[in-house]
Amino acid sequence: MIVSTDLARRPSQFLRVPVCHFCAGHEEETPPEVLSYRDNNHWSLRVVPNKYPALRVEGVIEREGEGMFDKMSGIGAHEVIIETPGHKISLAELSDKNVENLFWAFRDRTLDLKRDTRLRYVLLFKNHGEAAGASLEHSHSQLIALPVVPVQVQEEIDGGLRYYKFKERCVYCDIVRQESADGARVILDTDEILVLAPYAARFPFETWVVPRRHSSHFETAHSSLIQALAWAVRATIRKLERVLEFPSYNFLIHTSPVQEGELEHYHWHLEIIPRLTKVAGFEWGAGFYINPTPPEEAAQFLRDAGL
Amino acid sequence: MIVSTDLARRPSQFLRVPVCHFCAGHEEETPPEVLSYRDNNHWSLRVVPNKYPALRVEGVIEREGEGMFDKMSGIGAHEVIIETPGHKISLAELSDKNVENLFWAFRDRTLDLKRDTRLRYVLLFKNHGEAAGASLEHSHSQLIALPVVPVQVQEEIDGGLRYYKFKERCVYCDIVRQESADGARVILDTDEILVLAPYAARFPFETWVVPRRHSSHFETAHSSLIQALAWAVRATIRKLERVLEFPSYNFLIHTSPVQEGELEHYHWHLEIIPRLTKVAGFEWGAGFYINPTPPEEAAQFLRDAGL
Repeated sequence: MIVSTDLARRPSQFLRVPVCHFCAGHEEETPPEVLSYRDNNHWSLRVVPNKYPALRVEGVIEREGEGMFDKMSGIGAHEVIIETPGHKISLAELSDKNVENLFWAFRDRTLDLKRDTRLRYVLLFKNHGEAAGASLEHSHSQLIALPVVPVQVQEEIDGGLRYYKFKERCVYCDIVRQESADGARVILDTDEILVLAPYAARFPFETWVVPRRHSSHFETAHSSLIQALAWAVRATIRKLERVLEFPSYNFLIHTSPVQEGELEHYHWHLEIIPRLTKVAGFEWGAGFYINPTPPEEAAQFLRDAGL
Repeated sequence: MIVSTDLARRPSQFLRVPVCHFCAGHEEETPPEVLSYRDNNHWSLRVVPNKYPALRVEGVIEREGEGMFDKMSGIGAHEVIIETPGHKISLAELSDKNVENLFWAFRDRTLDLKRDTRLRYVLLFKNHGEAAGASLEHSHSQLIALPVVPVQVQEEIDGGLRYYKFKERCVYCDIVRQESADGARVILDTDEILVLAPYAARFPFETWVVPRRHSSHFETAHSSLIQALAWAVRATIRKLERVLEFPSYNFLIHTSPVQEGELEHYHWHLEIIPRLTKVAGFEWGAGFYINPTPPEEAAQFLRDAGL
């Protein structure tokens, strides 16, 4: 858990800004950019530090005890990827090139941040819509670099390792093989990417975007894979918007800790969670989910929705 | 993950009922009760099976493979505790006796269900308000009995075991000692119960209600502890309602698996999570939380709020 007192303390204090600081012409209203992509002098994508960062790069990592508890200084980075200069709301409205740029920016920023060896993990994610926690409309994604590997990420990697020790195969490679052959939970199937409703989906219309070939680190993706990923994610979000009438959603890239070498037992992928149902008490406390929509049905709705 | 096709499949299909089936006079509109407490021929609390249960008691547990995946039949129970015959919305509006009855009902139903040795865990929880996933207004809590121990519960118990192996002390007993002595995160302090803002609070105003004396299983609580618990929970919810202007919240009893004997390394307690902020993408995927409110500040607000 991070305590960040830079953020407003009471939710009622989060006010909606009347003008959009992310639109072209408002560049001075954001902190100075750390990356931008340009066409003919105009930017097509900008990456800027979050104005109210949860973590900062400045300082040194200090670990200390406070009685029985452990504490650590909040070293890290929190950046916003502004996906387009115009005020578009949905990623599905962007051009293929815009969406591709988002994934290039995720890659470029990760490669840059991992040179700081204090940083062990880079979370790459998008919150779209109010129910998904987005506080601004303008199409954007985020990045948080951390000095620790988050608990659930480590558990997923450990789970992959237990499977690998037992079978000597990557569990995600096995999922790709079995799901392609079965087909019931497949949403989109290309040479490089498989989009599927996972067998044990926790949420209605939970969707995974998985590269077909084994690779543990997102930031090593080649150009053709970045293109295929961008196409598949945009097509999937269009399908979700068609079937679910423009839902709020989150996506998150599940990838390996940046300071680790290539892992045989972990396979990066992207998970999309439409925010359709409210998560209730026992789900928080128990990590135990009731999903009213079987994944086979969700997959069929999305398969049938066209591109 | 449970797939439950008894539930409506699309969130838009969850409609609000115009009359309240939980109010006195509407008893025929619920499934037949499994428990009730009565004063002078009138019920003061009823427990009924959920009309759209996530799990059912009927049937046998079957475990089978589906290719590489594992599946299990949905044996279990899903019950609703109707906390009062009148249409009260908040638990804080109920009498002390009503709130005490809720915890007696949690205890009585757990003792009854644990006799079915197929059932390994009983989740005892309340969803209050729409943002917390409650679909009905009438003051109620819920119970879900499961044939497995939920992942996060098991991890919490395993964490307690690691601490115990290292220190030969219960981590929650240590927290009670340290927090009582320190005081900065204490919200309410009685002979039997400590209410505190946990050191590593994931959410603003996250609150734990912890019995002072070690005990691993909620259902073994004696009468005086049930009374003290009811008083402390009601007082805490009043404080939360005063400070946060009637927030949605969830609470969940964290207790040991019902088929296990007394555990030295786990200590039951109740966690209350007000639903103030939207949980965002990386929080889902990474189990990693940014909390804008330091627990010391939350504790002070709640301490100062009066009873």
